[in-house]
Amino acid sequence: MTPPSPAALQARFAAVRRATERLTATLSAEDQVVQSMPEASPTKWHLAHTTWFYEAFILAPHRGGYRVFHQDFGYLFNSYYEAAGPRHPRPRRGMLTRPSLAEIHGYRRYVDEHLAVLVAEADEATWQTVAPLIELGLHHEQQHQELILTDILHAFAQNPLAPAAFPLVEAPPIVAPCDLGWYGFDGGLRRIGYDGGGFAYDNEGPAHLVHIEPFRLASRLITCGEFLAFIVDGGYREPRLWLADGWAAVEAQGWEAPLYWRRRQGEWWQMTLAGMLPLDRQAPVCHVGYYEADAFARWAGRRLPLEAEWEVAARTVACQGNFADAGVYRPLAAPTTGLSQMYGDAWEWTASAYLAYPGYRPPAGAIGEYNGKFMCNQFVLRGGSCATAADHIRPTYRNFFYPAQRWQFSGIRLAEDA
Amino acid sequence: MTPPSPAALQARFAAVRRATERLTATLSAEDQVVQSMPEASPTKWHLAHTTWFYEAFILAPHRGGYRVFHQDFGYLFNSYYEAAGPRHPRPRRGMLTRPSLAEIHGYRRYVDEHLAVLVAEADEATWQTVAPLIELGLHHEQQHQELILTDILHAFAQNPLAPAAFPLVEAPPIVAPCDLGWYGFDGGLRRIGYDGGGFAYDNEGPAHLVHIEPFRLASRLITCGEFLAFIVDGGYREPRLWLADGWAAVEAQGWEAPLYWRRRQGEWWQMTLAGMLPLDRQAPVCHVGYYEADAFARWAGRRLPLEAEWEVAARTVACQGNFADAGVYRPLAAPTTGLSQMYGDAWEWTASAYLAYPGYRPPAGAIGEYNGKFMCNQFVLRGGSCATAADHIRPTYRNFFYPAQRWQFSGIRLAEDA
Amino acid sequence: MTPPSPAALQARFAAVRRATERLTATLSAEDQVVQSMPEASPTKWHLAHTTWFYEAFILAPHRGGYRVFHQDFGYLFNSYYEAAGPRHPRPRRGMLTRPSLAEIHGYRRYVDEHLAVLVAEADEATWQTVAPLIELGLHHEQQHQELILTDILHAFAQNPLAPAAFPLVEAPPIVAPCDLGWYGFDGGLRRIGYDGGGFAYDNEGPAHLVHIEPFRLASRLITCGEFLAFIVDGGYREPRLWLADGWAAVEAQGWEAPLYWRRRQGEWWQMTLAGMLPLDRQAPVCHVGYYEADAFARWAGRRLPLEAEWEVAARTVACQGNFADAGVYRPLAAPTTGLSQMYGDAWEWTASAYLAYPGYRPPAGAIGEYNGKFMCNQFVLRGGSCATAADHIRPTYRNFFYPAQRWQFSGIRLAEDA
Amino acid sequence: MTPPSPAALQARFAAVRRATERLTATLSAEDQVVQSMPEASPTKWHLAHTTWFYEAFILAPHRGGYRVFHQDFGYLFNSYYEAAGPRHPRPRRGMLTRPSLAEIHGYRRYVDEHLAVLVAEADEATWQTVAPLIELGLHHEQQHQELILTDILHAFAQNPLAPAAFPLVEAPPIVAPCDLGWYGFDGGLRRIGYDGGGFAYDNEGPAHLVHIEPFRLASRLITCGEFLAFIVDGGYREPRLWLADGWAAVEAQGWEAPLYWRRRQGEWWQMTLAGMLPLDRQAPVCHVGYYEADAFARWAGRRLPLEAEWEVAARTVACQGNFADAGVYRPLAAPTTGLSQMYGDAWEWTASAYLAYPGYRPPAGAIGEYNGKFMCNQFVLRGGSCATAADHIRPTYRNFFYPAQRWQFSGIRLAEDA
Repeated sequence: MTPPSPAALQARFAAVRRATERLTATLSAEDQVVQSMPEASPTKWHLAHTTWFYEAFILAPHRGGYRVFHQDFGYLFNSYYEAAGPRHPRPRRGMLTRPSLAEIHGYRRYVDEHLAVLVAEADEATWQTVAPLIELGLHHEQQHQELILTDILHAFAQNPLAPAAFPLVEAPPIVAPCDLGWYGFDGGLRRIGYDGGGFAYDNEGPAHLVHIEPFRLASRLITCGEFLAFIVDGGYREPRLWLADGWAAVEAQGWEAPLYWRRRQGEWWQMTLAGMLPLDRQAPVCHVGYYEADAFARWAGRRLPLEAEWEVAARTVACQGNFADAGVYRPLAAPTTGLSQMYGDAWEWTASAYLAYPGYRPPAGAIGEYNGKFMCNQFVLRGGSCATAADHIRPTYRNFFYPAQRWQFSGIRLAEDA
Repeated sequence: MTPPSPAALQARFAAVRRATERLTATLSAEDQVVQSMPEASPTKWHLAHTTWFYEAFILAPHRGGYRVFHQDFGYLFNSYYEAAGPRHPRPRRGMLTRPSLAEIHGYRRYVDEHLAVLVAEADEATWQTVAPLIELGLHHEQQHQELILTDILHAFAQNPLAPAAFPLVEAPPIVAPCDLGWYGFDGGLRRIGYDGGGFAYDNEGPAHLVHIEPFRLASRLITCGEFLAFIVDGGYREPRLWLADGWAAVEAQGWEAPLYWRRRQGEWWQMTLAGMLPLDRQAPVCHVGYYEADAFARWAGRRLPLEAEWEVAARTVACQGNFADAGVYRPLAAPTTGLSQMYGDAWEWTASAYLAYPGYRPPAGAIGEYNGKFMCNQFVLRGGSCATAADHIRPTYRNFFYPAQRWQFSGIRLAEDA
Repeated sequence: MTPPSPAALQARFAAVRRATERLTATLSAEDQVVQSMPEASPTKWHLAHTTWFYEAFILAPHRGGYRVFHQDFGYLFNSYYEAAGPRHPRPRRGMLTRPSLAEIHGYRRYVDEHLAVLVAEADEATWQTVAPLIELGLHHEQQHQELILTDILHAFAQNPLAPAAFPLVEAPPIVAPCDLGWYGFDGGLRRIGYDGGGFAYDNEGPAHLVHIEPFRLASRLITCGEFLAFIVDGGYREPRLWLADGWAAVEAQGWEAPLYWRRRQGEWWQMTLAGMLPLDRQAPVCHVGYYEADAFARWAGRRLPLEAEWEVAARTVACQGNFADAGVYRPLAAPTTGLSQMYGDAWEWTASAYLAYPGYRPPAGAIGEYNGKFMCNQFVLRGGSCATAADHIRPTYRNFFYPAQRWQFSGIRLAEDA
Repeated sequence: MTPPSPAALQARFAAVRRATERLTATLSAEDQVVQSMPEASPTKWHLAHTTWFYEAFILAPHRGGYRVFHQDFGYLFNSYYEAAGPRHPRPRRGMLTRPSLAEIHGYRRYVDEHLAVLVAEADEATWQTVAPLIELGLHHEQQHQELILTDILHAFAQNPLAPAAFPLVEAPPIVAPCDLGWYGFDGGLRRIGYDGGGFAYDNEGPAHLVHIEPFRLASRLITCGEFLAFIVDGGYREPRLWLADGWAAVEAQGWEAPLYWRRRQGEWWQMTLAGMLPLDRQAPVCHVGYYEADAFARWAGRRLPLEAEWEVAARTVACQGNFADAGVYRPLAAPTTGLSQMYGDAWEWTASAYLAYPGYRPPAGAIGEYNGKFMCNQFVLRGGSCATAADHIRPTYRNFFYPAQRWQFSGIRLAEDA
């Protein structure tokens, strides 16, 4: 892959970095220090960790004479790279009231400046090495932009005051609700996975052949109104609708609705990044885990799509949708009756376990830990969400979460055998 | 599928029932009441549960006027069938000192007698319904025969006296250790899964096409000696060899060796059904979980086979091996240099998550809970073990356990891309 | 203290040993192996542990040439004596299906025989040393007789079949229920604690002066009917009646009634050693913890007695009551309107923490661990119960349990300031 | 008790409120939001809770027409008063990034102003009611001043950067280390507890007679150097030195030293409010729990004092010492060889369980929950610490913590029988 020009990449670097900071502009220093559960991280930590990524994997090895900003930041802001040394235990990231947010911003500027100089001065050979790492760092930072949003939503949802992280952006008016339609696809041997032509994570390849059966895919995401029907029908109380592990989670966690739904005086509300809002029945349901998506599909007499099916279908539509760039930060009702919402709005749980594609080899070194070591116990989600940067997503993109996890913008699209 | 004749099935029924009881003949009533962990069950419970299966799914619905042996046994001995009503909590099965073992044996006789009458008197239509359920019940009981062995081994391994459940059966002499060889297989479109011609569980079908890449499979299982080299090389101390969840398990559980290995005064021993034995370096390693199998493969520069690969290879050899029928109850060194040990000795962890085959539909009713609701978070194992009945196994058989589970006779066969 | 004669002590030894075995005669080997919670032990373990006590503390040190019955039994049957070496972890006592019950009985006979010889042959100096240890061993065994009863009741209460450990012994007919009366006692300086004249545990001394205020003591134990009034009045739902730790226990454990009360179709039942019986409203409530006793007292506008108060009052009545010797094994309604039930029926929670008396020094060696190291976090109970041997109890006897523990025969007697 | 004049109490009110804010002046908003364990609270929460106390118990009931500052603050900042309504779960106090620190300061000003008006305008009858509540509120706030210090120390100790909350104040030079001396006291009947003449908590009374035996008390607190000798002698590895519950804590928590001691390259350091400092061997050991204090005393052949003994001794010296007012915030070496350090430096664990004095009745209403409901499972500490306000302590003051808790400035003074 030919790397982009230094100027182009530097421009994109600046844009991504600014976007991250813009995302945190309405949050106080107090907001940015808190960790609401071990899986979530403080905003401040995300700001530092994405910065450390450039420092540890680009500046330190590839910029002669570079001095790290602070000797302890490698320990504090390494996430999970065993090859990069020991690190602060994940569940204790919320203990870091120091360094202050202001110091973290200083860290960002320091690394930005040094990276700009490295880009400007890199000779051809260095550029061949460094440009792909910067590219990776930018996609890495975009992933953390999404996590900043999902993590602060989780934190604010723990607060009885239900604060809004962002001002409310009204949804565009809906002419009429879109009925659920079905799109058929042929079976046969299909090639899926990343095949060159732009950035992709290692786990999206190698491209390879998969035999699929004929199938149909729902035209849009399942709405809150449809999911409410599942609840009203006793969906959360009937073990026969659930996987055994799913039912165990329902009982252990006391689940009765998606993560951020709240019932008050008989009315349903949903906690969002704009605070507590009345439930929008036309909007896609999100913050459901795989267990709920699977149970809903069983109740509906359908199933979840395989990731190969999803990818085959997704290649037939443009990669457009309700992304973080719109600043709405919640899923919106489907605008058309066509095959819609394949990208954006809510990640779509697939029925595929997150495993290596045939022939997959992680890259050498610490970067090899980026994706490969998580290929166990998780399910693949596809298509991005209202919290994903528009230029971060693509048809081959494989996101992955544990089946009980619900704090991402994760929703449901149904499939069925043709 | 044409059902077998009543006489043939009754003979097989009697044989399987006797085999179960023979398996427990050396165990005292005290041995048979204990539950050593929530995943394991008391021997006595297995004796009763396998009996309840016939009572609940065959006698009660299909034998007019049948009176259950004891009104509370449905509650006590239902394992996990939500459709069959509430049940005694799994972790408390070891509290059931009553009913006594003698009463359970009475329960077995009672159900055996009633089932014999049902078989003898069944008209043609009843037989069409009942025969497949009896067949299922027999395979179900054979699965529990294996669990009786693995569960009592686990229980005895908690006892500092390390008692032997069975007398030691010496291994046949080995002429020479078999080097690890490799067998190549072509890629392409292959049909896998159950395609008729005998009994199979629902989860083995439908037969379907899978595209596989060319691959090589190791000629035999990994030995204890080979696994010891992994340990000596620091395998349990190097996080980069492990899946992230695997490493978390290593640290949380303090794993340093397979489940039943013990180090005493510098020598390695292994707890077996014949008590504590010196580690046999030529014998296959077993009682490793998926995490360990995967880490070993990574350390060896190989990988685990996909279940489709395994099945393609397994169809090239006879379904023979060191099964429970031999009464050895531990894996033995490979006898030949050919593609060996595909069946028996130790279950082989595959790299495939336990998920539904395309088009899979569980049967209606409680029986539909047999396999389908577990299709999540587990990995497929293939080939049976030294604790499996010889006539219980077949090339399409899909066993499944969680990746951290180690108390089954589960071992390692390596694969690699061709 | 002058030791008893060898013949007298040997007779008592034989009697206590036989009493233990008689207590277990109706229990099967299966019953005797199970451990229903970490605090409880299998019957079989009690049989072995009480035997080990004589072996470890008397035969091994004081009988020349004594060979232990089994080299591993010290490890298996040491309860908590750090000075006596490492031991099998307490929560895993239920894993010991071997040694069998028959072997444990053999162990008992072996030790009994050797002890008889030691007693018969002891010279005067040996006798001075050994007799107090035998005496201690007998009281130790009597404590375990009570634990055998409370532990098997707990185990059987986990069984949905609610088996009876003993045949039901009917309560004597009650002429009329006894109203709750009050007995006044003067304040002033009082001497409490063991002051010589028979056996006592180390923790009952030294005798010492305590200043008490004038007080009144209830004439009898609180009945199930009175406790039911507390329940009906919302006692388990009103946090203001409870100590903070008690309320936390109510919420965490979901307490709604004493440990063995069950509500079925609107009627209250109680699990007993004779199986499930209708609640006897005249009988004393038992199987309540300190938290419940304290909350009940607060609800009743009274308080629990201090142990000094209890002892002062107890010295005014004879040490008689409904003990284990009666074979009833459950508390019975108070027979008279006088100060009754001070001994037997149910242990009485006091408001005194279990702490050392002034000048207390534990004995040297392992025996010093018998009582002293538990002087923390527990409360004193006084007076014995229906599961206590009649000749085991005395006015100075200090029993102690954690405030949340409920599986003993522990009940409530109220006090108030005069 | 005659209440102080409005002017005097208002002056004291202003002083205490200012002192609290001064204590937090060096902490950032980020520092003040974090909760490092369920037992500790964020600084910001302390600032709000102490304010809510005046609002809930004084302004709301006693100032006509008072409007609460924020309708949700009662829910957020009620600590444990069941009678004052439901409240935010304690372990989640660290989730409250909103209200902001600035809003909490606004809350403080609002309540201060309204209280000043209430004081100024109170008629005689109101003043009789309100003045004791203000007095209680001030002592309550002083307790939280100490908790602000101990909680922020705990939080900063979780931070690998070991930040300093306050600048280091050097210890005064020591002429010579003070040897440990012993002071004898007679036995007999002594009156202890609060007997009028100033403010006291309800749990300090009623004054009552206690009989004590003759005893000797150590002249000063145990030093870090003396405690180090215990460590070096294997104190944390010898179960026979510990209470059973204490040893269980040592094993479960992996204790090897007091809470904030750290060993680095063979040298001992201690985390303090001035950051990480080399261990001062002359200074009193602190941040030990009751279990450690008790084990140390046993190792030293002594015991801990009873609270009655302590109080008898404490009445012989002036109530002076190294308190929070000095701004040192760590214990200092004893300055003299007399009976010293009875007040200040470190709280002294006593051998007395925290229980009601004879005749104790908690006040009516929510205020009655202040002390009474904690009379279980805790031990009494006496004398105040370097984090206690000088005018907050007195000879009868009973502090109480669980025996495993170590994050307070809690130390050791030895006693022995005379």
